[in-house]
Amino acid sequence: MGREIERKFLVIGDDWRQRAAGTTIRQGYLCSLKERSVRVRVAGDRGTLTIKGMVVGAARAEYEYEIPVGDAEELLIGLCERPLIEKTRYRVGNAGDTWEVDVFAGDNAGLTVAEIELEDESQAVVPPDWIGEEVTGDPRYLNANLFKHPFSRW
Amino acid sequence: MGREIERKFLVIGDDWRQRAAGTTIRQGYLCSLKERSVRVRVAGDRGTLTIKGMVVGAARAEYEYEIPVGDAEELLIGLCERPLIEKTRYRVGNAGDTWEVDVFAGDNAGLTVAEIELEDESQAVVPPDWIGEEVTGDPRYLNANLFKHPFSRW
Repeated sequence: MGREIERKFLVIGDDWRQRAAGTTIRQGYLCSLKERSVRVRVAGDRGTLTIKGMVVGAARAEYEYEIPVGDAEELLIGLCERPLIEKTRYRVGNAGDTWEVDVFAGDNAGLTVAEIELEDESQAVVPPDWIGEEVTGDPRYLNANLFKHPFSRW
Repeated sequence: MGREIERKFLVIGDDWRQRAAGTTIRQGYLCSLKERSVRVRVAGDRGTLTIKGMVVGAARAEYEYEIPVGDAEELLIGLCERPLIEKTRYRVGNAGDTWEVDVFAGDNAGLTVAEIELEDESQAVVPPDWIGEEVTGDPRYLNANLFKHPFSRW
């Protein structure tokens, strides 16, 4: 079983930026329904195929499999829905937590979102100063929706 | 890259049955569009996730990944479209070729289909006596359609 518990926030300012370079991510969807999504991702030199179920609160079923990066590239080019999502992911440590900050490009340029994965939904989160409004329950911020309704057109 | 080239035929009579037992297959779809399908399959003790592209002639893109059989069972139960497809697959040798004969159950009971995988589309096929009408180009026989429009309701 996979289960992903994740809270999502908007990001304020640039204080989170570390010296470490981010990882460029390109991803697309073979399926992007409310009930489930099938995502193809190329992150650096790594390809993954990820199946996610419906979001319930901050949790959803998640199954992730590494696939050859060449396959992932072909799937992105040949079979995924358009447009693809492009973003740079930065991992930022704070108070023992690891935040993933995604800086979107393309039609979603201007959007920066921070996510934190939790062990369970009741786990306390210590938000750093650069964390803004929580958007965990807002479906517009699901990547599976951002390619269809990009930030630039909100 | 994966590419599947396959011809499909109806089956006449029972002469193809061998002593070897067949493999029970349960499969479902996370996505079943004309342009692409994402299939979850449990065949015996093996789980697979298979992405297929649009059928062009007898060929289509195909990417198949083995996944833990427990994951495959969970995906079938929790996330795949309903109903699932159940069938028994028999591998039958003939004239150096291997035919896969699928005997469907459930809503598709009464349907038996034989498939042969080819190296290229021009490869000659020697059909045994028990091979009937070719249905390669008929979308009704795609498994991704058989669960939505089962044989019993044709």
